[in-house]
Amino acid sequence: MSNNKLALISGGGALPVEVARYLKHIGRPYTVVRIEGLSDPELNDHPGQDLSLGDFARLFQILANEQVKAVTMCGYVQRPDFDTMQKNHGAQHLQSIQSAGRGGDDSLLRQVAQVIVSQGYHIEGAHEANPDLLIGVDLQAGPDPSPEAMEDAQEAMRVAAAIGALDIGQAVVVAGRITLAVEAQEGTQHMLSRITSLNPALRGTPDKRKGVLAKLAKPIQDLRLDMPTIGLQTVDDVASAGLCGIVARRHALLIVDKAAVYARATELGIFIYGHDEP
Amino acid sequence: MSNNKLALISGGGALPVEVARYLKHIGRPYTVVRIEGLSDPELNDHPGQDLSLGDFARLFQILANEQVKAVTMCGYVQRPDFDTMQKNHGAQHLQSIQSAGRGGDDSLLRQVAQVIVSQGYHIEGAHEANPDLLIGVDLQAGPDPSPEAMEDAQEAMRVAAAIGALDIGQAVVVAGRITLAVEAQEGTQHMLSRITSLNPALRGTPDKRKGVLAKLAKPIQDLRLDMPTIGLQTVDDVASAGLCGIVARRHALLIVDKAAVYARATELGIFIYGHDEP
Repeated sequence: MSNNKLALISGGGALPVEVARYLKHIGRPYTVVRIEGLSDPELNDHPGQDLSLGDFARLFQILANEQVKAVTMCGYVQRPDFDTMQKNHGAQHLQSIQSAGRGGDDSLLRQVAQVIVSQGYHIEGAHEANPDLLIGVDLQAGPDPSPEAMEDAQEAMRVAAAIGALDIGQAVVVAGRITLAVEAQEGTQHMLSRITSLNPALRGTPDKRKGVLAKLAKPIQDLRLDMPTIGLQTVDDVASAGLCGIVARRHALLIVDKAAVYARATELGIFIYGHDEP
Repeated sequence: MSNNKLALISGGGALPVEVARYLKHIGRPYTVVRIEGLSDPELNDHPGQDLSLGDFARLFQILANEQVKAVTMCGYVQRPDFDTMQKNHGAQHLQSIQSAGRGGDDSLLRQVAQVIVSQGYHIEGAHEANPDLLIGVDLQAGPDPSPEAMEDAQEAMRVAAAIGALDIGQAVVVAGRITLAVEAQEGTQHMLSRITSLNPALRGTPDKRKGVLAKLAKPIQDLRLDMPTIGLQTVDDVASAGLCGIVARRHALLIVDKAAVYARATELGIFIYGHDEP
């Protein structure tokens, strides 16, 4: 565990809160850079300062003043509207980032990280700043998977790895060894929402669960910036879709509000499994 | 072109009608086996008889009486409800077909074909019975693709081939070299319908078209039973999704009502392209 001072740039959602709580708990020095309008109000009670999205000049002032060595970026950030963003905010960095903005969100995040690294800082993943967020090994919550469910889990891992290698997306649903849905740009929640529209012969129901969600990072993803993540909403969506489980590569999935997620999964009869392969 | 007598087993939609018209036009002997409740009324004007879905005993009686050698199955057939299907309909075949019915639709069709082949008949694809249905080579309709659109078309073909090799689905949408959507069990129409919900920075609009639909057979598909198909609805859905074109492997896409499809594509500014690769 690192003991150098960390700046936590916090977008929206619970993930930055869990990182900040952990840093406080273990006594590591840190400061929170709260992105205005996004950062959770609980973070106002931690040491830190507010920042307008895209104000790189002020960001680097804060990082220098606080004498941090490492930076963690996490939490939800809406894709910025570059045209209306104030041009005096570290304008020398904006051009390269605007250009990256025409690619996917991955390349945008990577570009921001590169600017931060170019100023001499080290990027630390949320899972490095708080390893408790990661999924463990084997069964984490819910019932033991049936042999059929384990077959679906393995097939889902195999397909998700292939989809990721094609740089398409992170998540797939497999039931009865048939791939029901593949996530591309619509995101995991939208993908899960269409399962109930499929042919009933192919899928399960909340009364008779069948099929597994696999969620895997793409090889091109920088896990320090964008680790696959699930939370309570994911478990509820998986349950509504009639699936019986969630599988991920062990130590390669962030679980926001883990205790609550595991309790909900157990209550709904959804297994959560950290797999060795692939 | 074969001149032996053909039995055309006709499900719903315009495809069997186009095959029957062609057979009549070229003077090849044929009989239509009209699946009740599905077959288009126009087919009542062709030589043929009605059949209840799944009545294999009567099917083989018809094939023997008509002294056909070859059978074409095409048109839409809803996945049958095996439990309510009358058990006296060629019951000796129903068991293996019910068991295939638990797999995907591909395996169900293959199983039906296998039963027909086991009785000594040859299966002929709709595109073999009527080669006019196939897409040609290079630009078929609509405007010349821009260089960016050709890049998207090539990437879409590459991703669709990979998706097919994984036995996931036939169709993908690529825009700006990013895979926006992948078809699994939801079908092409549902996949296209979600494009307009995606981040506007990633996609086109009917005013400023961007992105290409690729539709390719999976290697596991038997093209005699289930060739990728588009029609007027596909062109309209592609147009609504803000895409600029449709690409397929040359001679490997069925186009139902081709003249009308090409006219609509030209009117809407959508190109249709028969690609050499992959």
